[in-house]
Amino acid sequence: MLNIKETQQLVNAELKKINFTTEPLALYAPIEYTLAQGGKRIRPVLCLMAAQLFGHAPQKVIYPALGLEIFHNFTLLHDDIMDNAEVRRNNPTVHKKWDTNTAILSGDAMMIKAHQFICNCEDSKLPKVITLFNEVALGVCEGQQYDMEFETRKDVSVEDYIKMISLKTAILLAGSLKMGAILANASEEEADLIYQFGMNIGLAFQLQDDYLDTFGNQDTFGKKIGGDIIANKKTFLLLTALKKAEKEDKRNLINWITVEHDNHNLKIEEVKKIYQKLAVDTDSKNKMNEYYEKAIQCLGEIKGNESVKKELKNFASQLMQRIN
Amino acid sequence: MLNIKETQQLVNAELKKINFTTEPLALYAPIEYTLAQGGKRIRPVLCLMAAQLFGHAPQKVIYPALGLEIFHNFTLLHDDIMDNAEVRRNNPTVHKKWDTNTAILSGDAMMIKAHQFICNCEDSKLPKVITLFNEVALGVCEGQQYDMEFETRKDVSVEDYIKMISLKTAILLAGSLKMGAILANASEEEADLIYQFGMNIGLAFQLQDDYLDTFGNQDTFGKKIGGDIIANKKTFLLLTALKKAEKEDKRNLINWITVEHDNHNLKIEEVKKIYQKLAVDTDSKNKMNEYYEKAIQCLGEIKGNESVKKELKNFASQLMQRIN
Repeated sequence: MLNIKETQQLVNAELKKINFTTEPLALYAPIEYTLAQGGKRIRPVLCLMAAQLFGHAPQKVIYPALGLEIFHNFTLLHDDIMDNAEVRRNNPTVHKKWDTNTAILSGDAMMIKAHQFICNCEDSKLPKVITLFNEVALGVCEGQQYDMEFETRKDVSVEDYIKMISLKTAILLAGSLKMGAILANASEEEADLIYQFGMNIGLAFQLQDDYLDTFGNQDTFGKKIGGDIIANKKTFLLLTALKKAEKEDKRNLINWITVEHDNHNLKIEEVKKIYQKLAVDTDSKNKMNEYYEKAIQCLGEIKGNESVKKELKNFASQLMQRIN
Repeated sequence: MLNIKETQQLVNAELKKINFTTEPLALYAPIEYTLAQGGKRIRPVLCLMAAQLFGHAPQKVIYPALGLEIFHNFTLLHDDIMDNAEVRRNNPTVHKKWDTNTAILSGDAMMIKAHQFICNCEDSKLPKVITLFNEVALGVCEGQQYDMEFETRKDVSVEDYIKMISLKTAILLAGSLKMGAILANASEEEADLIYQFGMNIGLAFQLQDDYLDTFGNQDTFGKKIGGDIIANKKTFLLLTALKKAEKEDKRNLINWITVEHDNHNLKIEEVKKIYQKLAVDTDSKNKMNEYYEKAIQCLGEIKGNESVKKELKNFASQLMQRIN
């Protein structure tokens, strides 16, 4: 068995072997550039761990796993155009380094490349693999659409938010695990359990990420604290606070998010105070734990290789450790 | 057997049955909008004709055929962003009616939808169908990339141009025919012959389109004559003229395409005169005929249903009739 770290090394080694830079260079060079930026390779790693969980050597299903990484990086490439992001992983984004047309078209080619890699599996697995992948890929687009809409919509509920992050983030983690399970001949029931493990871990992780954006420690979180508050981002914290707040708290909170405020630090401090008064920080932690426990429970119900299960459990717990 | 017109009616009827407009609306409404604009549905029609050529009822393979139309419309949607086109089929383009982000993301979803339809075929056909489709789809992206690059490149040869149009236009026609053949259990050899028929017809058609842009009749061509000359578009005519021209002709031609000229009609007339003097209009017609003859020859070598062959031959000849 390869552990998480060894699996990650395998993914990076195999990715390095592939030459994406063929003619026309302007179409394919951005693909190589994007994939060379690194990252944790979580999606292919999860796919390969799931394959191992059901007794398959990771090397045997490396191409679909790489396809998931290529697809994920395609979504980043197109999202960066839509968000007008200038930097990704300390390097200029593709539409800044090249231009928007190149980023659109290279992204399109990258999505087709992802399909080619995903489909590089045994013929007998192809129908299930491709059905799963197309469903997941469409879900990711829907998640991105909801995320963009939420910026201007005024009627977003906590449930809407959970649905959005389940599509934008969690579904691809869940789908990566399920793909590994399908490729390793797991039963439908077990493939669904590992999918649910991924979905719940994904939700817990995204809630944690939002929590840390407000209540985290700048040194360990890695980016500036309070960004979501400044941007009035409709996170679990804000949406729950808007639902729970009454009278003066509600008036204050609405004032902070609707009126332009120059003093960013003051805004962060005051909104945080309201969150704490309303205990939405605790609500968020409770919700995270709920998803985390659900994930661990699903994993426990799977009759797979126990060492791999332990490895996946450690991985989940490490993902959730940043909070304490 | 359904003839071309009946096949086109089938495609339109089946396309109408599908409800693309699900939640989130802003993601899926542009897909419905794009597909409702009409068009000749050439790609699915060719796919279904090829299926009939090898004895398959078109209704049995309607979904992959519709997938080809969805894919083609996806390429138009993203191309319109890249070309900053405002109008398509007399209606505002998606990025004008909505916005660029919507057009990028809806296009992505549309490409995934295309994959879903393409993969809606018998499991036994899936490996060949999906391999063909991904190859063709990547080719179309390469064609669009070359087309964009040619605008600024100064070293484009006639061969480069033929390669570009083979990817941008002809490969999807060829691939649509081959897909129908594969779905109808044609032999590898016959699937390749119908592919070559499509490739050659596609090349002949694109050459004709470029010819008519300069030498056509405005009433029958449907758009303003001389657009390519005004835009200095590197077509077969211009590239061949640049290759053949000597001394004064060469100096004049280079002057027309490198110096800004306000009198568009004069530029069109003078460049046309140079083309005619160099006989590149005849070269273009000869090249078209060469491809057309090659296409008919490939079709003749196929041992398929004779009525369908006749129908495909009529279709090819109608495509090429606008010139006389």
